[in-house]
Amino acid sequence: MRGLMQDWPLLVHKILDHAATYFGDRQIVTRAVEPDGGIRRTTYADIHRRARKLASAFQSFGVRLGDRVATLAWNTERHLEAWYGIAGVGAVYHTLNPRLFPEQIVYIANHAEDRIIMTDLTFVPLLEKIQDHLKSVEAIIILTDRAHMPQTSLRNVICYEEFVAAGSDSFEWASFDENTACGLCYTSGTTGNPKGVLYSHRSNVLHSLAANQSDALGVSNGDVILPVVPMFHANAWSLAFSAPMAGAALVMPGARLDGPSIYELLENERVTMTAAVPTVWLALLNHLEGNNLKLSTLKRVAIGGSACPPSMIEKFEKNYGVDVSHAWGMTELSPVGTVGTLKAEQKALPFDERLRIKSKQGRPMFTVEMKILDDAGKELPRDGKAFGHLVVRGPAIASGYFKGDGGQVLDGEGFFDTGDVSTIDAQGFMQITDRAKDVIKSGGEWISSIDIENLAVGHPAVANAAVIGVHHPKWDERPLLIVQKKPGHEVSREEMLAFLDGKIAKWWMPDDVAFIDNIPLTATGKIQKVELRNIFKDYRLPTAGAAAAAGGAS
Amino acid sequence: MRGLMQDWPLLVHKILDHAATYFGDRQIVTRAVEPDGGIRRTTYADIHRRARKLASAFQSFGVRLGDRVATLAWNTERHLEAWYGIAGVGAVYHTLNPRLFPEQIVYIANHAEDRIIMTDLTFVPLLEKIQDHLKSVEAIIILTDRAHMPQTSLRNVICYEEFVAAGSDSFEWASFDENTACGLCYTSGTTGNPKGVLYSHRSNVLHSLAANQSDALGVSNGDVILPVVPMFHANAWSLAFSAPMAGAALVMPGARLDGPSIYELLENERVTMTAAVPTVWLALLNHLEGNNLKLSTLKRVAIGGSACPPSMIEKFEKNYGVDVSHAWGMTELSPVGTVGTLKAEQKALPFDERLRIKSKQGRPMFTVEMKILDDAGKELPRDGKAFGHLVVRGPAIASGYFKGDGGQVLDGEGFFDTGDVSTIDAQGFMQITDRAKDVIKSGGEWISSIDIENLAVGHPAVANAAVIGVHHPKWDERPLLIVQKKPGHEVSREEMLAFLDGKIAKWWMPDDVAFIDNIPLTATGKIQKVELRNIFKDYRLPTAGAAAAAGGAS
Repeated sequence: MRGLMQDWPLLVHKILDHAATYFGDRQIVTRAVEPDGGIRRTTYADIHRRARKLASAFQSFGVRLGDRVATLAWNTERHLEAWYGIAGVGAVYHTLNPRLFPEQIVYIANHAEDRIIMTDLTFVPLLEKIQDHLKSVEAIIILTDRAHMPQTSLRNVICYEEFVAAGSDSFEWASFDENTACGLCYTSGTTGNPKGVLYSHRSNVLHSLAANQSDALGVSNGDVILPVVPMFHANAWSLAFSAPMAGAALVMPGARLDGPSIYELLENERVTMTAAVPTVWLALLNHLEGNNLKLSTLKRVAIGGSACPPSMIEKFEKNYGVDVSHAWGMTELSPVGTVGTLKAEQKALPFDERLRIKSKQGRPMFTVEMKILDDAGKELPRDGKAFGHLVVRGPAIASGYFKGDGGQVLDGEGFFDTGDVSTIDAQGFMQITDRAKDVIKSGGEWISSIDIENLAVGHPAVANAAVIGVHHPKWDERPLLIVQKKPGHEVSREEMLAFLDGKIAKWWMPDDVAFIDNIPLTATGKIQKVELRNIFKDYRLPTAGAAAAAGGAS
Repeated sequence: MRGLMQDWPLLVHKILDHAATYFGDRQIVTRAVEPDGGIRRTTYADIHRRARKLASAFQSFGVRLGDRVATLAWNTERHLEAWYGIAGVGAVYHTLNPRLFPEQIVYIANHAEDRIIMTDLTFVPLLEKIQDHLKSVEAIIILTDRAHMPQTSLRNVICYEEFVAAGSDSFEWASFDENTACGLCYTSGTTGNPKGVLYSHRSNVLHSLAANQSDALGVSNGDVILPVVPMFHANAWSLAFSAPMAGAALVMPGARLDGPSIYELLENERVTMTAAVPTVWLALLNHLEGNNLKLSTLKRVAIGGSACPPSMIEKFEKNYGVDVSHAWGMTELSPVGTVGTLKAEQKALPFDERLRIKSKQGRPMFTVEMKILDDAGKELPRDGKAFGHLVVRGPAIASGYFKGDGGQVLDGEGFFDTGDVSTIDAQGFMQITDRAKDVIKSGGEWISSIDIENLAVGHPAVANAAVIGVHHPKWDERPLLIVQKKPGHEVSREEMLAFLDGKIAKWWMPDDVAFIDNIPLTATGKIQKVELRNIFKDYRLPTAGAAAAAGGAS
């Protein structure tokens, strides 16, 4: 027997309807991408009006249900309009990550069969270089007005403002099943080709409802949110939906994500909450410290993308009075999986205890189920010590990749393997200890590379550090610590090992230390362990019974 | 094209799974219904364990998907277990309201075809009287332990604790489509037979996600919530779902809802948030004032069910430091439609301005669409002045009544007519001005009976007041003010009219005042206007051109 409740499909454009009706005058502030553009100001009412005109223009262009329209753009009010305009005709907004290598972008755009690319001025030169390889693209919409249209060799170029202006004012959103595809974002895998995660309207709406719970992102109408995290990265942590859902104002930073530029927006626009990866916050903290500045309105920072050093959390809280929530997620999770909001009883703990908890990745919000498994698929205890494969299940979690890439990705119970290895403690706080493929298997036991790396970067002479497993005749694998020194600093193998001594279990101690000029990073700033393992593939550990013979290390 | 997201049906028992996993030790405190029962304490982990045993026992009994299992019970931990245990096998929890007349309860239980009734000891005498009329009931489960089982003439009686104990510890929740019926609650209509609202799992989960947004109920894991609003009333304002979803503790008041009993729980259990109808708060405020007491932990009060006098909001905020949220809803809305949380910019207004806004019924949370229509179905402006039929649309709003009662209830656009008449202001705040059937139509213009009543009860000699439209040869209808005086107080017709003079528009002034010993109330404490209109059906107004001839009034 079915309940007798209305059939009201969860469609993302209903979020914008709500924002325009109840928070029509809330400001959306954008730092223009155009060099002379300055600060632009608009409102949800205006974005609602323009997004519908845009949707109508897409309809006239011939964009149909399920078509992919790509965006290659910074966070601006036009990018926000674009998402809603695309989704509002039932097409799929496909975020292209400009930080990827050009050949990856070509691969992704062709794989997605994008019909249109909407681009910022910034990326016109990039598109000029690759346009001959883009097989499905019929038009390129440049997100600017007529006055700023560039000289370009691009073919079939459209001026965004003119495209919008041609749309109808009386357009009504399309309505369709809530499971209809809505957004597409490719994961930048370290091996193999990128794979597409295909969000539905339902998953985006449910994710935003869940993320807006008080103890998750807890967005309210009094918030002014600066999403530093780009819209082309992991669905913008859902802020493009959760902010208008709550009636929060948005400050869009455009192309300038450096410390001084972010600081200027935080202060001038009275931002209360912001979200970004640790490297952005490092730049901001450096700027604050170097210039003896304060943050006068910022209350909350969500940090995700990679593990946040405890020292960063401590600085934000002690020196600037800003509450830090460590969050964890993945493109495949829409993206938020856990948020590190303390439980009520934990708020009364001494600072160091709170810091220890806040350095974990947090608790799942309702709609996310998670557990950890051993190699045999058996669930491990939630004791904060056992670590295993982190698997997740929920309505905003991928069931597979676009066009079937990667094959079957769910286990028999419907859980998705995140590829992360983590602990979960008795309070439900999850802590990533490693990527599954980076874990070092020593004599059948697991050693976390990340734990050792986090300690090693605490040494004042270390710019970056990586730990990989290298072959050992007795233990199968043993850890090798690879160190990139800060310019002008020196540190020896013995000093590094002495620095770690006592901080980790004896059997976790690296068997050797190698120094390297540059630890290779991915386009998104993560350590390329595959590349490191390749560089050190013939490395012989001194403990392996013979003299060390470094391969490729300096 | 469908998104590639997991098929994770929104089922209410997943809420309890989440609470047990991440907030397993959160307390559920109950004031026992048994006279010698005192205070019982349990946790989400225990409720989760017991609800699954209960579900298993239902399964053994033969309860199947879609079967109705009724509860006739106060708010206790056992009632909470019952809801989850019933829903967890795919059956329908059907709340019977013990405040209805016995013949209404018989009608409802038969109409619902309840197979089992779960009852508190309190209602055993009531059931003994009506059991011969209950056609479908196969068993009556008494929500107590063996030691407290009563001597009773009831047939097929089962002791709840024994029933639970017989259930299996290894039971796994059923899984099924999220649109499956989950809960049933009948509206106590003032005319005609009660009609059943049939909630689905989906509507309950979505409603709780929406209600838990920061600016709606904003429940967090640090909250200790005392739902004074009974679970048999309008789906308990969703607190049975939204509290465990957020990990909030619950304090269940059992049968004692008087001022001193509620006060004792608020203080002893360190309650932070509570929800009830105005009459309960009146009793609490009287107790506080009469005994010079303070509220040391309470932060937020949600008031709904009927309009809350501004003086009550003022007292809570000024004298007790408690933030009042006026909420509005209906059984048909699951039930929350609007919540009166101020917008950020309104929080800075002077107290009187804030009070004026807070006295309205509030803004809809996302997932609730609302608008006001004139008699011809044309949308009226959101100017805070125009008032019309309030219609709503959303995923947790009824599409019809159980077994088709009442016929088609949605308009062509899918909106449900609430039967209320209201304004909506430019900020989106809705204010009920009347029930559509109680509005007084004077010369083609509408007069709000509620506005005049709210003013009239402000007179120190008035215990209660009602305004109805009575026939007028020229204006069709004109308002008659009906007053019930406080014992030992006197007030004249002229004094009443003088009291209103200047507070309302001239043409809204009642044409006459009638005094009556007792204004008739419904079982749920609302004024029975149908009955009043019947009493005064032959009333001739002095303005009708002849001497007044009161019928039935004293």
